[in-house]
Amino acid sequence: MRILIDAMGGDNAPDCVIDGVCLAKGELGGSVDLTLIGDEQKIRSYAKDRMLSLDGIDIVHTDVAIGMEENPMAMAKGKKECSMAIGLKMLSPVGVGRNKYGMTGDAFVSAGSTGALHMGSSLFAGRIAGVRRPAIAVILPFSKPVLMLDSGANPDARGDYMCQWAIAGSAYMSALMGIQSPRVGLLNNGTEECKGNETAVEAHKLLSEANINFVGNVEARDIPFGVCDVLVCDGFTGNVVLKLTEGVGKFIFSCLRDVFETSLRTKLAYMLVKPQLKAMKKRLDSSEYGGAPLLGLDKTVIKAHGSSDGKAICNAILQAKKCVESDVVGVMKAALGESGEQS
Amino acid sequence: MRILIDAMGGDNAPDCVIDGVCLAKGELGGSVDLTLIGDEQKIRSYAKDRMLSLDGIDIVHTDVAIGMEENPMAMAKGKKECSMAIGLKMLSPVGVGRNKYGMTGDAFVSAGSTGALHMGSSLFAGRIAGVRRPAIAVILPFSKPVLMLDSGANPDARGDYMCQWAIAGSAYMSALMGIQSPRVGLLNNGTEECKGNETAVEAHKLLSEANINFVGNVEARDIPFGVCDVLVCDGFTGNVVLKLTEGVGKFIFSCLRDVFETSLRTKLAYMLVKPQLKAMKKRLDSSEYGGAPLLGLDKTVIKAHGSSDGKAICNAILQAKKCVESDVVGVMKAALGESGEQS
Repeated sequence: MRILIDAMGGDNAPDCVIDGVCLAKGELGGSVDLTLIGDEQKIRSYAKDRMLSLDGIDIVHTDVAIGMEENPMAMAKGKKECSMAIGLKMLSPVGVGRNKYGMTGDAFVSAGSTGALHMGSSLFAGRIAGVRRPAIAVILPFSKPVLMLDSGANPDARGDYMCQWAIAGSAYMSALMGIQSPRVGLLNNGTEECKGNETAVEAHKLLSEANINFVGNVEARDIPFGVCDVLVCDGFTGNVVLKLTEGVGKFIFSCLRDVFETSLRTKLAYMLVKPQLKAMKKRLDSSEYGGAPLLGLDKTVIKAHGSSDGKAICNAILQAKKCVESDVVGVMKAALGESGEQS
Repeated sequence: MRILIDAMGGDNAPDCVIDGVCLAKGELGGSVDLTLIGDEQKIRSYAKDRMLSLDGIDIVHTDVAIGMEENPMAMAKGKKECSMAIGLKMLSPVGVGRNKYGMTGDAFVSAGSTGALHMGSSLFAGRIAGVRRPAIAVILPFSKPVLMLDSGANPDARGDYMCQWAIAGSAYMSALMGIQSPRVGLLNNGTEECKGNETAVEAHKLLSEANINFVGNVEARDIPFGVCDVLVCDGFTGNVVLKLTEGVGKFIFSCLRDVFETSLRTKLAYMLVKPQLKAMKKRLDSSEYGGAPLLGLDKTVIKAHGSSDGKAICNAILQAKKCVESDVVGVMKAALGESGEQS
């Protein structure tokens, strides 16, 4: 098994990416081949400074990177040879497609721009036959983990896309998280069947007919309370759910800080609950669940958070390994095939 | 000034509505005429049981009500004489439109079904000239109050609707809350101008050209931190924002409860911060801001929360009075006229 890692993606690239790859190498030993894609000189010089060993880690050199805020379209124009594009091309067999890099990967991890990764995956990576649009799935860190897709890559969605995402998300949750017959919910503005905007109404109809465990419409207020394992929505709404969860959490914790800062009495209270509060905050941190998989591609692609540190990159690599081992893509292909989605 | 109140709307109708009207009568004295619309016998018998005086409160009798879960379309068919429909018709001058009830109201308050109130307002109440779709606005209870619209009445929106809502929302926040030149944000999945689904992209263009203080796209994670005074979005997304804010808040408070229940130590901590925690919870309760105004109509209509108690109904009545006094509708008309939205 070979996992490719984008050395030039993320807020702290390449430093934290190199840290993460070295950590992962330590964990995985020789069982997985790791390939860093990026500026070889920078990589070697950082490793040397930190006395990190790159033994057994391959490097594919490029000094082109696509920035976090750069227009994803650049992937189609001047930046076809950026580290992210190379990683995606290397998911094809050597010599096939545009893989001219002498080795092939089973999975690709990048902490770079989400938009670019989604765009690049359409340009350079293969989709599962019949899949209309790949989606980016994230785990929402509530009482039970909820896989939500799409989380932002497809602001304009259609019912048929969403139905495929439901099937792919179910396959991911069963193969990777061991959940039998994951409950799929459709995010909507009411629980009744007739509710929703045009897209949601269309999606409801298709989801009802699909070969999944569809539990119907889910209202946003119920998301945190374990009403479904897979939550399907268009990417615009998914992005709002993801970021609002983060924002409201941050806001309430800032209010709590004010509460504990009120007086000597409340400061004492803080000292008494500090460890439990920290543990709670950690449990609510979505980065504890690793990166966000792009589902619908015929290889594993994991988007690590832009602000990932070495540990987060290492976790994303381990997650990619688990995806390859559990053959998430194979399970997804079979599920989409059974549902007639490959016709 | 006359304020009409739907006695048959809400989870606790008519009891809590009657409580609320009597409370409001006590506060307002003779300065405002109050009219209850509902089952006269039930109203009188409840008031008698509780020894509440109905002196100076008019009653318009109907024993027809529209249920909280009932299809709003019923307003157009068998339920044209339900309390909500009568209230909306009574906003027209006596004899004009379908107002055959001998008195006319300046404002209407209902805790009934949101969908029915929105549908009924289109059927029976007048819109400000040129307004395409009325929106339901809610205050999100963050560090600074944010007026969000639409909050769910229009799941399928268009850029031009949203531009009118921005103008109406600005007028409301300046007339009612005294905010000079309210900052209007467009909820979007990124801050860059090009971001969004088709509707948001269209809305961005129109908002940039409108005569408002448009501060651009707002990401959901920033909503709680006072980046705008008015937040515009389609009703589907608005509904998700409203309910997810509620759900995440509830979830975090339930985690906090577990934290404080861990041990004797943490229980002691709870005792020390209990008053501050309660105050914080209250500050985060949106019902503290009263009801949700329907904006775009040519009279004031306030939707009180379905679970309103007497105090909440009383607050919604006081809010309606304030809207009439500050001539929110007049300010809105002028703003929409200036922006050429009445052509």
